[in-house]
Amino acid sequence: MQHNLQDTISLLARTPAALNALLRDLPESWTLGNEDAETWNAFDIVGHLIHGERTDWMPRARMILQFGEAKTFEPFDRWGQERESKGKSLAQLLDEFARLRSENLTELRGLNLRQEDLERRGKHPALGVVTLSELLATWAAHDLTHLHQISRVMAHQYREAVGPWTKFLGVLQCAGHSSP
Amino acid sequence: MQHNLQDTISLLARTPAALNALLRDLPESWTLGNEDAETWNAFDIVGHLIHGERTDWMPRARMILQFGEAKTFEPFDRWGQERESKGKSLAQLLDEFARLRSENLTELRGLNLRQEDLERRGKHPALGVVTLSELLATWAAHDLTHLHQISRVMAHQYREAVGPWTKFLGVLQCAGHSSP
Repeated sequence: MQHNLQDTISLLARTPAALNALLRDLPESWTLGNEDAETWNAFDIVGHLIHGERTDWMPRARMILQFGEAKTFEPFDRWGQERESKGKSLAQLLDEFARLRSENLTELRGLNLRQEDLERRGKHPALGVVTLSELLATWAAHDLTHLHQISRVMAHQYREAVGPWTKFLGVLQCAGHSSP
Repeated sequence: MQHNLQDTISLLARTPAALNALLRDLPESWTLGNEDAETWNAFDIVGHLIHGERTDWMPRARMILQFGEAKTFEPFDRWGQERESKGKSLAQLLDEFARLRSENLTELRGLNLRQEDLERRGKHPALGVVTLSELLATWAAHDLTHLHQISRVMAHQYREAVGPWTKFLGVLQCAGHSSP
């Protein structure tokens, strides 16, 4: 499947409501439980998504359109959510994520990107040359990577509770490739 | 984390709305795309969840309470969604899943299970002796296994589109342990 901008926007528009439906007012045993020391819980992951809305996706899209390969993206701070989340409730983070995502999609739609815009190139600090199309596809796949991670982290809380069913539950076999 | 019935119910109650927010009216390139021949797409997975509501979780809970280990559970038909889904739209399946889950949770709450009930044992055709507590914990973890799977199957559709970012996206490293 090729990148399709409308499909990307359709998915990006749904993630905040999906996370809201899953996580709002869920007991903290689910939302604050992680997999091990230094691993993320659902609360951390929503903070990470917020940090991406502020510093990653649209700022990089703007850089590609404005500077092309002449200016390298700022490296993304994978621990930036500590600042985003401090002192906030999960409900506040869910609201903030929904608001920022909505604003970013309004800006993205307003760009009226054409195929030739999507082929424009920028420079990633680690990956080298990337296209705007790849950046926007990654924004959507990044939502899915973290929905995948949230499912895994929450399922981990019941690793013992499921008893012998553990071997039938795919999510409990997942080695946690989302973490690094 | 031990099994906690209220935590289980809290999660089970949220899954239909989370899937609804994620999947309803999403382009079919996301919801009908699978990973390979004979693998499931999001549409199939919602059908599988419906089939579980009808034939797996509450019927087995009733069997444990009524017969204990004296009667072995019916084996679960992992391809039962073909009958559940035939001729239906994804929107219809999402509605049906929400309705069945809601009815099942009403019945579960009505049982007013005490700790000694949760310790009651039943007999699984492959796993042998299991407890009611393990069955109910598995019901919740099973939702998460399929949310994990849906995220992975949908992300797979953008495997090429993300270009060099593929190596940073954990979900694209997931080997698909949910399938078997």
